Amino acid sequence: MKKVYVHITLKQGVLDPQGKAIQASLHSLGFQEVEDARVGKVIELHVQDSPHLEANVQEMCEKLLANPVIEDYRIEVGEAVRS
Amino acid sequence: MKKVYVHITLKQGVLDPQGKAIQASLHSLGFQEVEDARVGKVIELHVQDSPHLEANVQEMCEKLLANPVIEDYRIEVGEAVRS
Repeated sequence: MKKVYVHITLKQGVLDPQGKAIQASLHSLGFQEVEDARVGKVIELHVQDSPHLEANVQEMCEKLLANPVIEDYRIEVGEAVRS
Repeated sequence: MKKVYVHITLKQGVLDPQGKAIQASLHSLGFQEVEDARVGKVIELHVQDSPHLEANVQEMCEKLLANPVIEDYRIEVGEAVRS
């Protein structure tokens, strides 16, 4: 069993309303030094190891995990899961 | 200006309904090899550099960005923002 991390971020140029809301809230709390905020996701998967592990996870991203129109994704195969 | 990444994950033992939904969807797509899925956030901040940068971001986490009851967070100070 392996830990696989899928890092998903909005493509450059895509408006990030959640990030804008965070930035505005930080400003209202007095943190004026924050000039931009963007929010991404990290999905940690526990996947049975196989020779096709990375290719399978890429297929999972294309079919479900990431929206190819507005999101980029990066797959990071991590350590074995301690059972 | 510095890039600062705030990695936010649910504490161990906290139910992750979003992760469970992803796992169920992956199974219905035929990816039976996925035995667990957990979803975290990464907030990328662009913050004016200062000697108290990390302490300030920690305060932002405590006040707004992370829910200390159910979430853990980790601060990663990255590279300078290219203007």
